[in-house]
Amino acid sequence: MPARIAVDALGGDDAPASVVRGVLDAVAADPDLEVLLVGDPELIGDAVAGVPRVRVAASGGRVAQEADPVEAVRADPGCSIGVAARLVRDGEADALVSAGHSGATLAAAVLLVGRQAGVSRPALAAVLPGATGPTVLVDAGANLDTSARQLHEFAHLGCAFAEDVLGLREATCGLLAIGEEPGKGDQRMKEAHALIAADPALRYRGSVEGRDALTSAVDVIVSDGFAGNVLLKACEGTAREAFRRVRAEATGPRAALGGILLRPALRRVRDDLDPDTYGGAHLLGCRGVAVIAHGAARPHGIARACRYAAEGVRADLPGRIAARIGALGA
Amino acid sequence: MPARIAVDALGGDDAPASVVRGVLDAVAADPDLEVLLVGDPELIGDAVAGVPRVRVAASGGRVAQEADPVEAVRADPGCSIGVAARLVRDGEADALVSAGHSGATLAAAVLLVGRQAGVSRPALAAVLPGATGPTVLVDAGANLDTSARQLHEFAHLGCAFAEDVLGLREATCGLLAIGEEPGKGDQRMKEAHALIAADPALRYRGSVEGRDALTSAVDVIVSDGFAGNVLLKACEGTAREAFRRVRAEATGPRAALGGILLRPALRRVRDDLDPDTYGGAHLLGCRGVAVIAHGAARPHGIARACRYAAEGVRADLPGRIAARIGALGA
Repeated sequence: MPARIAVDALGGDDAPASVVRGVLDAVAADPDLEVLLVGDPELIGDAVAGVPRVRVAASGGRVAQEADPVEAVRADPGCSIGVAARLVRDGEADALVSAGHSGATLAAAVLLVGRQAGVSRPALAAVLPGATGPTVLVDAGANLDTSARQLHEFAHLGCAFAEDVLGLREATCGLLAIGEEPGKGDQRMKEAHALIAADPALRYRGSVEGRDALTSAVDVIVSDGFAGNVLLKACEGTAREAFRRVRAEATGPRAALGGILLRPALRRVRDDLDPDTYGGAHLLGCRGVAVIAHGAARPHGIARACRYAAEGVRADLPGRIAARIGALGA
Repeated sequence: MPARIAVDALGGDDAPASVVRGVLDAVAADPDLEVLLVGDPELIGDAVAGVPRVRVAASGGRVAQEADPVEAVRADPGCSIGVAARLVRDGEADALVSAGHSGATLAAAVLLVGRQAGVSRPALAAVLPGATGPTVLVDAGANLDTSARQLHEFAHLGCAFAEDVLGLREATCGLLAIGEEPGKGDQRMKEAHALIAADPALRYRGSVEGRDALTSAVDVIVSDGFAGNVLLKACEGTAREAFRRVRAEATGPRAALGGILLRPALRRVRDDLDPDTYGGAHLLGCRGVAVIAHGAARPHGIARACRYAAEGVRADLPGRIAARIGALGA
């Protein structure tokens, strides 16, 4: 099934060079992938001239990292992420991929692509490497303040993603909390717990703690975006720091030899814990697929983000979410 | 300098046996340590009979894990943690240690020992194993909702602890946030940033993210208790899971031999990342020293918690905090 993806060529640390190379890799690997590369034709046109299934869509500049995202997208509708979002809104692309200013990508997706009916706040779904399979964390940083009702929506967004894109069956979910008692926490957490627990369409397993992030205790961890982002970054940072320290400690002939012999195993675990496995995070709840790629994405990260976006398109992620949220409202 | 510590003998998974053994180890190692062991004399009296510097203080039962902490402490003033807290309040002990219901310990410390003048909310200080030394995380879980002014207080509590107990010089601090821009976040975070940045008595380095927890980016990470607890647990859980996976992957003759040769280095890193290093967390801002030990604390964890509490007493932690907070209010 074809998937048409609008890729922000100007977003990311090494843009446009790394983005262009990633896109070329992605279309070479997937014969049903079409890419609209959004940016300055003078900068990117030559690199993709004559490449099948890659076209350039002209735009203005990129949103600066220090800009206020909502203002930037409103003030400069011709910026690269703005043009990419409108291609999705207008049906010329099925999905949006950007490694640029993540706040601007969020703002463009919400303001220009638009929310799905029944979704009050789109939310970012990060995928954590659980012990027995992927674990979805939603919201991973899109929303700073979140009501109990929105946390309930996030549970549905996350379960739709886990089942329809990641292929997990009968996904279970838990509410990120401190302490194990399900009703523990402030008023908002108690309300969210009551709403989610009372919903027969969700397989709710109660509270989960930060230490459950990688143990596959549940398939979907539901959180507000602040705590969710802290959790995601803490897992990434701790894994990186643990391996850095092992390398630093592996000195002396015995330990150095041990390090060499154990290297393939250490690499497997390190790569397994690497957030770049998926190339980015899906923004759930918009009228189109949107993937926010890592800002430091190298070409293979961009290629992965394109593949990841195509998976969302082929699973009809927006349609699946609409069906779930529609049933919720009924 | 003598330190007199009231230890809740009934708190913790293996209490009273593990607590009694930990206390015996602690007093054997520190000739200036005195312990008031709080609990049922029939249960613990024989084990410490004739031991110098250990006395039993009679109490009722322990607070049940499922109890509401504030209600439990109010309803049963004779419970073990309640008696221990009153020993500190009445000047018969300098510090309180419990591995029991952490909410009940918090409630007893705040309600019975009492807050220091100028401290609106006592906060838990966890110590993270940073790359170049310890990093203080405050609040690590005592307070679920926190105002900007309280976050400002937490910065002072954490810096006092880092400098006076951990011996860090000219401690720097940062505000836990998502994204790097210091003013980013909701209104409360912006206000907290402004208050802390404007305070000449603090060495503020702006925002830190979850991934900075173990990199020694700052000496003190300031957070509300919810996100702080998520961060702490995520670091613990990720470190544990990373080592579990390395062990699971170290199969086959080459990797197994590598694992054996590298084992001392892996153990050093694992132990370095082990939260049990300190035996617990100091509750900062009460009129006495209070250490909340891990509920699953084994005897050496209890001994460490006692030593840790004694360090707080000998550093005159409450006095140092009073001086800082007094200067803040002036």
